[in-house]
Amino acid sequence: MSREHINNAVQICHSLLASCIHGDEDIVDATAGNGHDMLYAAGLTSGRIYGFDIQEKAVSATRELLQRHGLLSDRVRLVCESHTEMDKHVVSPVKAVLFNLGYLPGGDKTITTAASTTLSGLGCALRLLSPGGMVFIVVYRGHPHGEKEYEALRDFCAALPQKQYNVAFCSFPNQAGKPPLLFVIEFRNNGAAAPDLG
Amino acid sequence: MSREHINNAVQICHSLLASCIHGDEDIVDATAGNGHDMLYAAGLTSGRIYGFDIQEKAVSATRELLQRHGLLSDRVRLVCESHTEMDKHVVSPVKAVLFNLGYLPGGDKTITTAASTTLSGLGCALRLLSPGGMVFIVVYRGHPHGEKEYEALRDFCAALPQKQYNVAFCSFPNQAGKPPLLFVIEFRNNGAAAPDLG
Repeated sequence: MSREHINNAVQICHSLLASCIHGDEDIVDATAGNGHDMLYAAGLTSGRIYGFDIQEKAVSATRELLQRHGLLSDRVRLVCESHTEMDKHVVSPVKAVLFNLGYLPGGDKTITTAASTTLSGLGCALRLLSPGGMVFIVVYRGHPHGEKEYEALRDFCAALPQKQYNVAFCSFPNQAGKPPLLFVIEFRNNGAAAPDLG
Repeated sequence: MSREHINNAVQICHSLLASCIHGDEDIVDATAGNGHDMLYAAGLTSGRIYGFDIQEKAVSATRELLQRHGLLSDRVRLVCESHTEMDKHVVSPVKAVLFNLGYLPGGDKTITTAASTTLSGLGCALRLLSPGGMVFIVVYRGHPHGEKEYEALRDFCAALPQKQYNVAFCSFPNQAGKPPLLFVIEFRNNGAAAPDLG
């Protein structure tokens, strides 16, 4: 039985990430969590893979998952720090940055991402992108900060200048409840300079 | 300069189509138009490629485009008939069906797809899908029938049972005007029987 492709925001994120990675680009996971996105990313590229998370528990879980799959090597860099600080650790342009927001699955549900730091991290991510690079943001509206975080992202994304950035938004019209949603931002490879996003 | 990936509905459609085709599945283009989607599909699979269009001009343009690229062969079947009749010509299950609605680019702009026949064609497409198969619908709100067609599709897609079908909807929040939108329907490969959609 083949895997499904559009059941949820993470599946679409993974399909579009695969279409933009050609084998040796660097990728950042801004929210390492339990490491599933990093594992997927590490399978797509031979380039560097950076992972950030504010919880040591998440960094450990990610390290263990990568090790279990034989993918923990010099090219992997795991940092227990907020994604708002990612530009201290990632110096050269990267092809993709992933954000999977909300709380750590299986962890403390009161520790969640929040609108202000998410936008700050997103600004950081956009500055790190190489031309043609993409940012993927999976956002959850079901937890207390989620609705505000979604609204902040929606407004931020809608205001990105069309000349420099493509923005796509994916929703799931036949799903009950509040399924996670996906924003995708592509830094257009058209020679236009990136604006100062502040 | 690498191609962009999420600038518009057709780009996302092509990326997701590529992720679900493994090399030998059959694909239907329900709206052949000038043949660009069929050309892309023919490059993804060695299986059969069906194309439907109600305008002979479109069928000819598609035939010429495929011929120019050396892709016109026995596995290609072009039919000058409405996609509401596709099940007369396509007998075995297919992996994907593409709809690119609206009018023929460069053709008579008064000849457009319309909500009732689009929904009828879509019902036909869903009945032809193999488990794991996908339907892609690019819809244009900028022409007279477009808004109604979009609303009809939105309501139809939202009502598809979640147990049997995944539905994703892609929009473009930072684009001016009324950019084309994308609906994607996946027939879930989970053993659940397809419902009678009428």
